[in-house]
Amino acid sequence: MSKPLILVTNDDGIYSKGLRLLVKLMQQLGEVIVVAPDSPQSGMGHAITIGNTLRLNETDIFDGLTAYHCSGTPADCVKLAKNVILKDRKADLVVSGVNHGSNTSISVIYSGTMSAAIEAAIEEIPAIGFSLCDYSEEAPMEHIEEFVIKIAQQVLDKGLPKGVALNVNFPPKRNESIKGIKICRQTRAKWQEEFDQRFDPNGRRYFWMAGNFVNMDKGEDIDEWAIANNYTSVVPTQYDLTAYHAISILNKEWEI
Amino acid sequence: MSKPLILVTNDDGIYSKGLRLLVKLMQQLGEVIVVAPDSPQSGMGHAITIGNTLRLNETDIFDGLTAYHCSGTPADCVKLAKNVILKDRKADLVVSGVNHGSNTSISVIYSGTMSAAIEAAIEEIPAIGFSLCDYSEEAPMEHIEEFVIKIAQQVLDKGLPKGVALNVNFPPKRNESIKGIKICRQTRAKWQEEFDQRFDPNGRRYFWMAGNFVNMDKGEDIDEWAIANNYTSVVPTQYDLTAYHAISILNKEWEI
Repeated sequence: MSKPLILVTNDDGIYSKGLRLLVKLMQQLGEVIVVAPDSPQSGMGHAITIGNTLRLNETDIFDGLTAYHCSGTPADCVKLAKNVILKDRKADLVVSGVNHGSNTSISVIYSGTMSAAIEAAIEEIPAIGFSLCDYSEEAPMEHIEEFVIKIAQQVLDKGLPKGVALNVNFPPKRNESIKGIKICRQTRAKWQEEFDQRFDPNGRRYFWMAGNFVNMDKGEDIDEWAIANNYTSVVPTQYDLTAYHAISILNKEWEI
Repeated sequence: MSKPLILVTNDDGIYSKGLRLLVKLMQQLGEVIVVAPDSPQSGMGHAITIGNTLRLNETDIFDGLTAYHCSGTPADCVKLAKNVILKDRKADLVVSGVNHGSNTSISVIYSGTMSAAIEAAIEEIPAIGFSLCDYSEEAPMEHIEEFVIKIAQQVLDKGLPKGVALNVNFPPKRNESIKGIKICRQTRAKWQEEFDQRFDPNGRRYFWMAGNFVNMDKGEDIDEWAIANNYTSVVPTQYDLTAYHAISILNKEWEI
């Protein structure tokens, strides 16, 4: 049996520690190719590059592997990998990350990491976004390795329901080992922004966005609960945004 | 009773025809403030500006209205409007658009127009993204005016279910008038990209993304059907991406 073909990408850029870890681990499971952004793309959501040109260049930073860096977004990387690099071959798995920072809860919609995974799901390729709930560029990651392997292997063995990608978050390194894996729903929460107003050397105003995470959700089946209690969270995530329950409400209530 | 407060934004930028139309129409329904991007932000998905500064400056291009242009994305515009401009006041409605081009089907996840509406929904403000299925900057829009008013008025009168924003698309101007409004689900479809490879004056390769829309969905309850049959489509859209049906599948099938 031939080895599975695994595309590795991320949103922190081709030089990030999380990408290097994912490349190393995926080589244990299959044939790896890498297509990752030139530079960090955090907060890019599901952006794609349609009004500008894209660069895609090969790199030898991953010894012996086919690897490219791209001027675009994570979603662009998946599209270029499929259409320009792989062409007639189809990846068996797309993995994105390991992101340096949490993508639990509402962060999933701002996440470049998850946009790559969702882009792959649209192409009917099983896909996983991995994120570590520690924003440090040098965050310890040894404690997550066995879970990355285990989850990727499950997806290779069993596939995923159509239209679904996985949003996987890991707790930061703590004294105690990670307790296990919980399949969760997305926490109902939001970011409460505070804009830091400053003035440039010419006296003109600008802002930095900053914010606090506000969790309104007391459930124990949510990804935030899993992380707080030292579990790995797995949220099956879909790109059909239809609020089906609202269709009948609108049909009943509206005068149209 | 005081007039409702309506925030108008878009992703095509503050000078677009679609925004001007929305500003004009919303003035019939309430007090309008405008916060829109400096420049076109198409395809920005739910991007936010977290690694860079933001500019926000007042403009007098809308006679007598409070209006700002912003260096950021549509989602940034909503966040800045809420936190920096409105502060203690809360908008009763956020409208985004009218986008020059379709945001039906899978385009919703790439759409800057809809990211502004979804950002408002996260803040529990009723919100609507309006898009015209005609990519021309000078596309005729008179035929959609009554529908923009009717839908915005329904939302002001009846609100929207929690966590839901509306994705409204209008057919292009045809000989026959628009037949009415259909409440729809998001069409199951995708973009089949083709990358146009070129070489710059220094001989270095670059790409333009282009693509064809591929509709795999034969339903008659979908937004693409509505547009093709000259109806206005309304898809209730949510930001909870959890694929609930997949939770039990993973719990049953996985060995974890």
